[in-house]
Amino acid sequence: MQIAFLLYDGFTSLDITGPHETLNGMPGHEIVFVAEEAGPIWNESKTLQMVAHKSISEVPSPDVIVVPGGLGTRAILDHQPLLDWLRSAHETSTWTTSVCTGSLLLAAAGILDDQEATTHWLARDTLAELGAKPVADRLVESGKVMTAAGVSSGIDMGLTLIQRMYGDEASQAVQLGIEYDPQPPFDSGAPEKAHETIRELVTTVFTAQEAAFTPGEPVA
Amino acid sequence: MQIAFLLYDGFTSLDITGPHETLNGMPGHEIVFVAEEAGPIWNESKTLQMVAHKSISEVPSPDVIVVPGGLGTRAILDHQPLLDWLRSAHETSTWTTSVCTGSLLLAAAGILDDQEATTHWLARDTLAELGAKPVADRLVESGKVMTAAGVSSGIDMGLTLIQRMYGDEASQAVQLGIEYDPQPPFDSGAPEKAHETIRELVTTVFTAQEAAFTPGEPVA
Repeated sequence: MQIAFLLYDGFTSLDITGPHETLNGMPGHEIVFVAEEAGPIWNESKTLQMVAHKSISEVPSPDVIVVPGGLGTRAILDHQPLLDWLRSAHETSTWTTSVCTGSLLLAAAGILDDQEATTHWLARDTLAELGAKPVADRLVESGKVMTAAGVSSGIDMGLTLIQRMYGDEASQAVQLGIEYDPQPPFDSGAPEKAHETIRELVTTVFTAQEAAFTPGEPVA
Repeated sequence: MQIAFLLYDGFTSLDITGPHETLNGMPGHEIVFVAEEAGPIWNESKTLQMVAHKSISEVPSPDVIVVPGGLGTRAILDHQPLLDWLRSAHETSTWTTSVCTGSLLLAAAGILDDQEATTHWLARDTLAELGAKPVADRLVESGKVMTAAGVSSGIDMGLTLIQRMYGDEASQAVQLGIEYDPQPPFDSGAPEKAHETIRELVTTVFTAQEAAFTPGEPVA
């Protein structure tokens, strides 16, 4: 089973390493990080680079596709080479998945037309504008498409994919392997759980960060 | 504030991207991924590479040190250049932290002598052999040293570090930003919560993986 993890300029690292760490917990997977062109790819804050070992053209028909989000998503919503690859790979995939604003890319490719899907809570309006029906759930399954909410939700998505593919015990074993027994200091990980002032703060910061994002190398 | 994220051959990617994604949520941090030598570094399963942009010798006194675990940890428990750097950097750090078997490296450097610390649940005996007092908690604070349990616990650690450094609201905002509202399909993320057969399965798999780990480039 070949699993393609997509990288692009401005991705969020936890969006992609969460699903990787869980799907990597099962033996027999061929895992490949891909990008439009192979090479090191900067994350959204230019603090981290992950390496794409193959170009998307070298991986035309993976069994599972994982698309992360990030501040760089909106800059490529009409970038046809990537959207063409998503459309084509989706035709033969077993699972087509996204985390956070990765679902905006799936929507831009037409994969989510009139289908329920989720995304980062701040991107629901954009997801609707792109033709999907946004819902506030942490995970949404629609046929062979699975979309997850913001950033850390990719871990839950990966464990759920393991369950769907290999059963309950496999998912439980992977969860124990990564000791996923969450104990955050607060319970403010969803917009309806956080205080209004926290929601406003995050909205302000993210809006500013998104406006400030520029692709390419870091400014020295 | 300079935050050094250590990479080494055979690290676990989620161990380091969890803390990165949380600490990266606050502005004003200089984030730098380091390794003994700069360049792309393979994870434990040789499925993923992250780039160390600087060598440890270029980053002698970070304010915060984050040490991940991985199948590659045990191979470097007597590797003095790395342990020397940890000892030296720890002298001036504000926080010295680890995730998963990263605490074995701190212990090997003498930083955890006779101190309570945590690690991946399968590595507690080794942690004791290295002079620390292992406890089964998800996070252990001992002065300026914070150790976290297996893999995913680094997210909880990062949010707790944000709380210690910037207060409750900052931690809540970062949690909302990464939408950390965990909803795994099962509740088997700790050894005392998982069924005995699951514990045994994970123990068998991890023991085999650890024995099979070899540093260096993937075999073609």
